[in-house]
Amino acid sequence: MTNPMDRFYAVIPAGGIGSRLWPLSRASAPKFLHDLTGSGQTLLQDTWDRLQPIAQGRTLIVTGSVHATAVAEQLPELTAENLVLEPTPRDSTAAIALSAAILMQREPDVIIGSFAADHVILDSAAFQASVREAVQVAATGKIVTLGLRPTEASVAFGYIHRGPQIAGTSACEVKNFVEKPSIKLAKEYVESGEYLWNAGMFIAQAKVLLEVLGKTEPALHAQVTELAQNWDTSLRTERLEAIWNKTKKIAIDYSIAEPAAKLGLVAVIPAEFEWHDVGDFASIAELQSQGRKGNLAVLGNAKVLADSSSGILVSDTDRLIALIGLEDVIVVDTPDALLVTTKEHAQRVKSLVDALKTSGHSDLL
Amino acid sequence: MTNPMDRFYAVIPAGGIGSRLWPLSRASAPKFLHDLTGSGQTLLQDTWDRLQPIAQGRTLIVTGSVHATAVAEQLPELTAENLVLEPTPRDSTAAIALSAAILMQREPDVIIGSFAADHVILDSAAFQASVREAVQVAATGKIVTLGLRPTEASVAFGYIHRGPQIAGTSACEVKNFVEKPSIKLAKEYVESGEYLWNAGMFIAQAKVLLEVLGKTEPALHAQVTELAQNWDTSLRTERLEAIWNKTKKIAIDYSIAEPAAKLGLVAVIPAEFEWHDVGDFASIAELQSQGRKGNLAVLGNAKVLADSSSGILVSDTDRLIALIGLEDVIVVDTPDALLVTTKEHAQRVKSLVDALKTSGHSDLL
Repeated sequence: MTNPMDRFYAVIPAGGIGSRLWPLSRASAPKFLHDLTGSGQTLLQDTWDRLQPIAQGRTLIVTGSVHATAVAEQLPELTAENLVLEPTPRDSTAAIALSAAILMQREPDVIIGSFAADHVILDSAAFQASVREAVQVAATGKIVTLGLRPTEASVAFGYIHRGPQIAGTSACEVKNFVEKPSIKLAKEYVESGEYLWNAGMFIAQAKVLLEVLGKTEPALHAQVTELAQNWDTSLRTERLEAIWNKTKKIAIDYSIAEPAAKLGLVAVIPAEFEWHDVGDFASIAELQSQGRKGNLAVLGNAKVLADSSSGILVSDTDRLIALIGLEDVIVVDTPDALLVTTKEHAQRVKSLVDALKTSGHSDLL
Repeated sequence: MTNPMDRFYAVIPAGGIGSRLWPLSRASAPKFLHDLTGSGQTLLQDTWDRLQPIAQGRTLIVTGSVHATAVAEQLPELTAENLVLEPTPRDSTAAIALSAAILMQREPDVIIGSFAADHVILDSAAFQASVREAVQVAATGKIVTLGLRPTEASVAFGYIHRGPQIAGTSACEVKNFVEKPSIKLAKEYVESGEYLWNAGMFIAQAKVLLEVLGKTEPALHAQVTELAQNWDTSLRTERLEAIWNKTKKIAIDYSIAEPAAKLGLVAVIPAEFEWHDVGDFASIAELQSQGRKGNLAVLGNAKVLADSSSGILVSDTDRLIALIGLEDVIVVDTPDALLVTTKEHAQRVKSLVDALKTSGHSDLL
């Protein structure tokens, strides 16, 4: 028997604007293109590096055409055949299903793992071990997700309700996925021990994923299949232009994960590594261990004078920044826009970005 | 009898760095060169305009050589003979006494009035009426100061202890000047009704001022007299170079006002107009009635998106500035430096500027 790891191919969907990280994250430079942890690398580069010990270059990026240059610059090892460019964003199902279909066209028995480009995982070895086991389970026909053991009753994530353990593995059957809960429900979930955080990571045979999609979204399945059949031919561009903007915009949670769970096709590997989706500046402040000035986390090369201030300063300029007597402040300084808020209000940045759209400042998005 | 107003000459000492208004106010562009009220004019221009109805162009500016160009640009009506340039700052006595001596050299019976370039007075007519009366009293030989009726027990100002009213005028004798008091003393002062705020405005015959100086600081008196005698000759530059940097640095309060009060030479006109010395950003916020965004005072042409924020935003750039959920915040955005603090800490900006000096950022002062 061959090792299923030989069939593994990592897929990194690199999309999303990261509105809650404005003005650092922009439509033209979303969060995966930034170093948000002070690691010296961007989130995309960190994601790539984390996968190489298990994928050995078998790593495909699916991203918007507008990011092609930036992605190529950040990932010099990325080959042309491993870069799938979407003319426009069509949500996660189109991106991942197209990638799965292309890879299956090239290798019919491929097992793919989908990992977002903008997550932070602090223990690469534990992550890799979980993925390795997930690949083994995926080889049995399951769609396998990694579920994080909750460390608090967070209302920011969806949860996975797990069922019985699958013999000979640390994986469990998945009863169902539940959306971001109320705080009351979140507490019940955590206390029960039966729920894990859904980090949106899926490992499965491409064939299995596409079979589910064929049942739930047959039109979308047909579209990505046709695109994949023409991808490595001279017809790619023509077919993309004809088909892409007609594809349904739907999250993979709805098109594949939840329906597959109902069919008893999904398993979850409980995982222990520290994982962050870096949703807002408050979460960046928590991640930031380097570049501190007392209680102030500093990201970027700003000259900083901080007097009794705590929070986070993100600088994309070389200006001097002086902070006095501020508690849990968030300051984000970019060449054309400045944001000042507090950790408490970090989530409200998204509504501000919406306000920018309606107030004629789309150039700053 | 001629009207003493015909002998009146306004002097505007335009100096001081305004450390507490950094990074807007800089050594190279101190606060009097800025519009801090949203009037559309700088404080210097406002001061000039306020004096014209009573001075009719008889207005002299004494300022640092480094500000010559900026002052000339802001005051196109200013003639060369009305601009006294100090090679270096030597405190208020040297500046005002030199101006008095120059004007007395030109007009022996001149009555001068000294008014700082960086104060805000919101009722010009009341100010002008007080100055007119002060000039009448000054013609009798008094050094006359304008004392503001306190509206609160402020510890930010010195006080004037007034004595009996001078017959036929609204002026009172001045018993003495007191420095910035404790809050307890300030309350007693205000309750007594005998104390007025010292706004540092003096109106007197140049001859009288210089006579006092001749007694208290004879060397300084001799130096400004020699400079004045050579001022309107080809020897001005040579004499300035020889003498100026040897003059004593002393505030006019110590060299003239307080000693003259002890000699019974000082009178005060109680004044009612709204006056501000615009010492820090908190006071700017109070002044700012135009350009408000809800509870946020906005100075400058920033594009602002403010969400439930109060305080003051001063912008010297064209960046978009977004504020969310900040209370009594102070944001000062300039091309090379950004300050974020709160009204509560507005006074601490000065210590931060001191820290800049010692941390090798003198270029930003």
